[in-house]
This record gives sequence, C-alpha cells and structure tokens, in this order.
Amino acid sequence: MKAKVYVTLKPSVLDPQGKAIKHSVELLGFSGISDIRQGKYFEIAIEGPLNVDQAREEAVRMAHDVLSNPIIEDFRVEIEE
Amino acid sequence: MKAKVYVTLKPSVLDPQGKAIKHSVELLGFSGISDIRQGKYFEIAIEGPLNVDQAREEAVRMAHDVLSNPIIEDFRVEIEE
Repeated sequence: MKAKVYVTLKPSVLDPQGKAIKHSVELLGFSGISDIRQGKYFEIAIEGPLNVDQAREEAVRMAHDVLSNPIIEDFRVEIEE
Repeated sequence: MKAKVYVTLKPSVLDPQGKAIKHSVELLGFSGISDIRQGKYFEIAIEGPLNVDQAREEAVRMAHDVLSNPIIEDFRVEIEE
C-alpha cells in the first residue's frame, strides 16, 4: 500500500520561495501566472497487516507529527492500494 | 485555473532525505514503513485567456524547464478548473 502526503503552507503564510519561482518563470517568458506556491510531497510505502483505514490513520499521524509543521502548514493524505 | 505539479526523484535515484525521514519515523515508533521518498509539489494559479489544454501545455513546459531536473526527476501535472 502507498500513502501520499501533500504538505502545503497555509494560505495566510508568506511563501518567498514560491514568489522567487514565479519571478524566474516570468523572466523566462511564461505569462498568465498569478501565483506559485511550493509544497512538499511524500510517498510512503506501507507494508504489513494494516488495512486501508489503519494505514490512513498511521499516515495522518505521521504527517501531523513528523512531515508537517501544523502551525504554518496544512497536509492532505491519500491512500493508494 | 490551478495547475498542480508533482516532482519526484526517478526510482533509480537514491533519496538520502527520504531515508533520513524513514529512520526518524521508525525511532518515533511508527512501524510497517518500508520506504519514504520525498518530492516537491507546486500549486500554480493560472489566469487569463488560456483554456484547459493550453494551461496544461504551459504547466508541462514550466515543469520540464524550471520546476524539475529531467535527468534525475519525473513530474506529473494535474489541471483543476
């Protein structure tokens, strides 16, 4: 089973890295871009006797405790069988 | 319109950062994790007269030219209206 965790900055948090990417992209001639925000993406391979619900629970706990900073970041978990 | 770009290391490329996260996660008592790989995630807000196909084309070009290193990374683009 595979868990995919997407971590993004909360909308209220400034993203200077995203702003820098947007600037570079505009210099390279891409147009119509109003905003770019960068986040993190984790693929977690889960083995063993867990069912989908248990795997989701484990992945959410991991995302909350380790992979994200809940003060400034949101996360989203998807389970793929 | 929003384009989501997922950038991951190619399977053949070593991911020491993912290995370090896996190690930490195991020390914290999570079990049944066989692998963790870290990637990048970008949310791109697209404005203007582009239709979905044009937006996808623009996002793919951006992902290939700026957001990823095609030698060691793969990317995937999703368009959300």
